[in-house]
Amino acid sequence: MRTHWIDERIVYDGSQLRAHWLLHRCGFAGDALVAFRGPCAVAGDEMADLADLDGPGIAADDMVHFVWESFEHADLRLAVHRQRLLSAQAAEVLRELAPAAIVRRDGDDLWVGSGKLSISIATVTPVSALIHFAVNATPGGAPVPITTLAELRVEPRAFADALLRRAAAEQDSIDQARAKVRPKGEWR
Amino acid sequence: MRTHWIDERIVYDGSQLRAHWLLHRCGFAGDALVAFRGPCAVAGDEMADLADLDGPGIAADDMVHFVWESFEHADLRLAVHRQRLLSAQAAEVLRELAPAAIVRRDGDDLWVGSGKLSISIATVTPVSALIHFAVNATPGGAPVPITTLAELRVEPRAFADALLRRAAAEQDSIDQARAKVRPKGEWR
Amino acid sequence: MRTHWIDERIVYDGSQLRAHWLLHRCGFAGDALVAFRGPCAVAGDEMADLADLDGPGIAADDMVHFVWESFEHADLRLAVHRQRLLSAQAAEVLRELAPAAIVRRDGDDLWVGSGKLSISIATVTPVSALIHFAVNATPGGAPVPITTLAELRVEPRAFADALLRRAAAEQDSIDQARAKVRPKGEWR
Amino acid sequence: MRTHWIDERIVYDGSQLRAHWLLHRCGFAGDALVAFRGPCAVAGDEMADLADLDGPGIAADDMVHFVWESFEHADLRLAVHRQRLLSAQAAEVLRELAPAAIVRRDGDDLWVGSGKLSISIATVTPVSALIHFAVNATPGGAPVPITTLAELRVEPRAFADALLRRAAAEQDSIDQARAKVRPKGEWR
Amino acid sequence: MRTHWIDERIVYDGSQLRAHWLLHRCGFAGDALVAFRGPCAVAGDEMADLADLDGPGIAADDMVHFVWESFEHADLRLAVHRQRLLSAQAAEVLRELAPAAIVRRDGDDLWVGSGKLSISIATVTPVSALIHFAVNATPGGAPVPITTLAELRVEPRAFADALLRRAAAEQDSIDQARAKVRPKGEWR
Amino acid sequence: MRTHWIDERIVYDGSQLRAHWLLHRCGFAGDALVAFRGPCAVAGDEMADLADLDGPGIAADDMVHFVWESFEHADLRLAVHRQRLLSAQAAEVLRELAPAAIVRRDGDDLWVGSGKLSISIATVTPVSALIHFAVNATPGGAPVPITTLAELRVEPRAFADALLRRAAAEQDSIDQARAKVRPKGEWR
Repeated sequence: MRTHWIDERIVYDGSQLRAHWLLHRCGFAGDALVAFRGPCAVAGDEMADLADLDGPGIAADDMVHFVWESFEHADLRLAVHRQRLLSAQAAEVLRELAPAAIVRRDGDDLWVGSGKLSISIATVTPVSALIHFAVNATPGGAPVPITTLAELRVEPRAFADALLRRAAAEQDSIDQARAKVRPKGEWR
Repeated sequence: MRTHWIDERIVYDGSQLRAHWLLHRCGFAGDALVAFRGPCAVAGDEMADLADLDGPGIAADDMVHFVWESFEHADLRLAVHRQRLLSAQAAEVLRELAPAAIVRRDGDDLWVGSGKLSISIATVTPVSALIHFAVNATPGGAPVPITTLAELRVEPRAFADALLRRAAAEQDSIDQARAKVRPKGEWR
Repeated sequence: MRTHWIDERIVYDGSQLRAHWLLHRCGFAGDALVAFRGPCAVAGDEMADLADLDGPGIAADDMVHFVWESFEHADLRLAVHRQRLLSAQAAEVLRELAPAAIVRRDGDDLWVGSGKLSISIATVTPVSALIHFAVNATPGGAPVPITTLAELRVEPRAFADALLRRAAAEQDSIDQARAKVRPKGEWR
Repeated sequence: MRTHWIDERIVYDGSQLRAHWLLHRCGFAGDALVAFRGPCAVAGDEMADLADLDGPGIAADDMVHFVWESFEHADLRLAVHRQRLLSAQAAEVLRELAPAAIVRRDGDDLWVGSGKLSISIATVTPVSALIHFAVNATPGGAPVPITTLAELRVEPRAFADALLRRAAAEQDSIDQARAKVRPKGEWR
Repeated sequence: MRTHWIDERIVYDGSQLRAHWLLHRCGFAGDALVAFRGPCAVAGDEMADLADLDGPGIAADDMVHFVWESFEHADLRLAVHRQRLLSAQAAEVLRELAPAAIVRRDGDDLWVGSGKLSISIATVTPVSALIHFAVNATPGGAPVPITTLAELRVEPRAFADALLRRAAAEQDSIDQARAKVRPKGEWR
Repeated sequence: MRTHWIDERIVYDGSQLRAHWLLHRCGFAGDALVAFRGPCAVAGDEMADLADLDGPGIAADDMVHFVWESFEHADLRLAVHRQRLLSAQAAEVLRELAPAAIVRRDGDDLWVGSGKLSISIATVTPVSALIHFAVNATPGGAPVPITTLAELRVEPRAFADALLRRAAAEQDSIDQARAKVRPKGEWR
C-alpha cells in the first residue's frame, strides 16, 4: 500500500471520499493511504454515516486528515475492521508521542477525557472501499467539545508520518502473516 | 457473537484450534468467543504458524486463553484483522486495569518492556475461521522471557471478562456501523 | 434477524425498496424483515423487475407487504433463493391457516386456481440485498385476476405474524445447521 | 444444471457425498443433480451433520436418493438455502402426486403426521458444495418411525423425475430472474 | 454463455456498455457475448477508463464490436482477466486468418507494427461485469494511427464468428477444467 | 508479485504443487511465481487433474517449470483464467524468441504441429491457488509425442526469464487497469 503526505492545504468537505479522488489528486492508481492538513466542513449530502444526518454537524478549523482507498479489498465489513484498527493505531502512536496523555478509543473515535479528538467513517463505492479518519490539530470550529494535537503537544506532521508508516507496516505484516498460516481440520 | 468463560482448567495444546471444538466443548453452534485458564504446550503438528516451526516452542505454565470461531466470516484476511483488533483491545483493557504499565502492541503480540505477554494465531478450517490469543497469567514454563498478568497485578478472570465484553461489543458496533453507511460515488 | 409488524397503513409504491428505508422508518440498523398493510401502486421508475416494465402494472387496493433488508448477505443470488424460500414458506403458512385451499407456488408467485395471490421481487443496493413480497388481502385495484386472503378466510395480521415467525425461525435454523456441518473430501 | 436418473441400485453409505463422485459415477464434469434408488446406511465417519453423531443412526432399506454437486456455487450458506428449497419443492411435488396427504416441511425434513419421510444434509468440499436428500420409498430398516412413498401411493421413479425437473427448472428461473433485476439506490 | 451476431449496424457510443443493454437489444437474460459492426464515437461521459479522459478520444468509422455481459461473475478482477484473454484469443484468431501478419498483444490492446488494431475496456455495474472489445474493420475516423482488418485481408464477419466461437469454447473448457480438479494440501 | 529463477535442478513430481512449498523452498511469504529446470514425473497421487488419472502419465526428462502460488486470490475460477493467460503469454514469448515457429494454444496446452510443448494444471489449497506450467526443454522421457524448446532453438533460461517478466508485468497492468475504471449504470 502506497502512503503519501500532501503538502498542500485541502478543505475536507466530504466530496474527497469518492472513488478515484486519490487518482485524480495524486495520480495513484491502486490502494493508497494519504494524509493532509486542512479544515473540515462536511455537507449533509456528503455525509456517509446516516447517524450524522441529524447530528450537530461535522466541522473543525484545523485537522490532520487521512483518506484510504482500497480497490483490492472493496468489502465494507473488512473496511470497518481496518478503520477500527487505524483508530487503534492512532491511539498507539499518540501514546508514544505524548506518553502522559490518556487517549481512549471508543469504536472509531478517540477521546481525551470528554474532548473528542477524532472523526471517522468507512464506506464503499462500486469499485473500492474508502476510509476517512481525521484528528483535530488546533482548536476552533467544532460543534462539540474537542481535544487537539496542540493540547497534547504533538506536532501534526510527525503524527501523520508515524501513523502512515504504522498503518502501512501493519498491512504488510498482515499479508505476511496470512501467507505463513497452515489451515486446521475438524475436531474429533 | 456469544461469549463464555469456561471454569474448568484446560491444557491448550493446539488441538483445540479446530473446527467445531467449541460445539463439542460448550455446545455452541455458531460464532463464539470463549476464554479459559490453563497451561500451554503446542505440539509441532498443531502449530498453525509456519514461522513457529523452527522457533523455541510455544509453551507456558499458566495462561488465559481465548478461542474464537466464526462460521459467518470464514475469510482468513478478515480473521487476521480481527486478531490484530483483539490484540489492540487486550492492550486497551490492560491500560484500564493496570494504568501504570506500558503495554506495547507489535502486530498480534503484546509486550511489556522486553517481556512477551501474549501469543496468537489466526487460521482457517474448511468451514470457519479461528483465532487463538493467550496472555501469560503467572510466570513459568516459557522458552522466552515473558511478562505476566501477575506482574501487572491484573486478576486473570477480570481481564478475561473485560476482553470478552469488549470484543463482543466491538463486533456489535461494527455490525451497527456498517448498516448505517451510505455508499459513495465517483469523483468528477 | 429482527422482525416487526408496522401498525400504520403504508402505501407501497416501490420507493420503500431502497437501502436504509427500514432504518429510516423503524430505526433498525441491521438485517430485518418487516410487514405492514396498505395499497400497492408501483411506478415504472421504481420497478426493479425489468420484465414488469411492459406489463399490466403492479397495483392492488389492499395487500400485506413484507420488506426484507440484509446487510450481512448482500448477494443477489442468495437473495433470490431467500425470496423463493419466503414464497414457499408463505404457501406453507396458508396451508395451515386455510387447509382447504390449494395454493400453488410458481417461482416467487403464489396462485389459487387462476387467481394470482402475490407479487415479489429481490434486488440489491450498493450496501444490501432487498426483498419485497406482498399478498392480496381484500379484492380490488389489480390489473390482473387475483385471489385474496379474504377469499381464503385468512386474517391478514395472523398471516403476517405467522410468516414473520417462520421466516425468522428458518434463518436461525439455517445458521445453526451450517455451524454443525463437517466438510467432506475427495472421492477416490 | 444437468439432471440424471441412475437406473442401477446404489447403497448410499455417505461416501457418495464427496467431491467428484458424480464425475466418477456418471462422467459429469460440472454442476449436476442425480437421483437413484437403494438402501441407506451411513457410517459415523461419513456423517456430515455433527448432530447425527449421537443420534439413532441414519438407515433405511429403500429410499429415493438425490445427490447434488455444485462447483459454480461452492458456498455453504447458499447450499443450505438450496437444500431447504429442494425440500420445499419435494413437498410441493408430493402435494401434486398425493393430494390427500398432508406433508409438512420442518427445515430440511418432511413429515407426514409423526412419520419422518426424508433425510438431508448440505456440506462443502474444498472445490464444491454437496447436498444429499432422500425420501423413504418402502418401509423397513429405519431406526425411527417413518412414512414412505408407498404409503402415500406415490411411485418412486415418478417422484424422482418430477423433483429433478422442478429443481432444475427453478434454478433456471432463478438465473433468469437475477439477470432481469435493476438495482436500487438509497432512501432519502 | 450465449453468443450472437447482430446484423444491424450500431453506432457504439459507450452507452451500450450498461447493465441489461443486451437484454434490451437482444432479449437475452443471462451471460452473453454479442458482436456487431458499426462506427465508434465514445462521449467523455461514457468513457469507463479514466485514463482515456484526457486522451485523443475514442473513435473510428468502422469497427467490429464485441459486448460481453456476465451476471454470473460480476467481479472486476475476473472481468479484466477475461478481457485480457479475449484480446489474446483475438490475436490467435488473426494468426489463423492472416498468418503473414505479426499481431502483437500489449495488455488489452492489439497492434500491427505501430498501428493500433483494437480498443477495449472492462468495467462493472451493480449487477454485472461488462467488457467492450472492438477491432478496426476499415480505415478512417481514428484520432491515432490504426491498422484494420481490411489491411490484414481479414473479413470482419468471419473474424467475429471465429472469436465468438473461440471465446465461448474457452469459457466452456474453463468450466470443465475446474470441475475436474482435485485440491492440494500442505507442504511438509 | 515476486518472480524468481531457482538455479538448482529440481525433479518435479507434483508434490511441489502444495501450499507453502515456495515459502519452504525460497522463503517467500506471499504471492510468487518461480521457475526452474528439471525432469518431470508426476505420481498418480499427486495428479490434480482427474482427467490425467487414466492417461498415459505425466513425464519428461527435461522441462522448464513454473510454479505460481497466490494467497491474495485463492479462487479456482480466477486461477484457471490466470493459467490460460499464462499459457497465452508463453505462446507470445515464443513467437518473439522463435518467430518462424507456429505455436498453437489449445486451452492450457501449447502445441507445435502434432508435438505437445507444455503441460499445466491449476488447483487450490485451503489457503491459496496454485498453477503449474511447464515446457519441454530437450527431448526424451515423455509418454506422448512432444516438441521442445531445443527444436525451436529457444534457450530455456531466456524463455523462463521472459515469461516471468511478462506474467508479472501483466499482473501489474491488470491491477493498474482495474484501479482506473469507472463503473457503469443501467440501460434505459
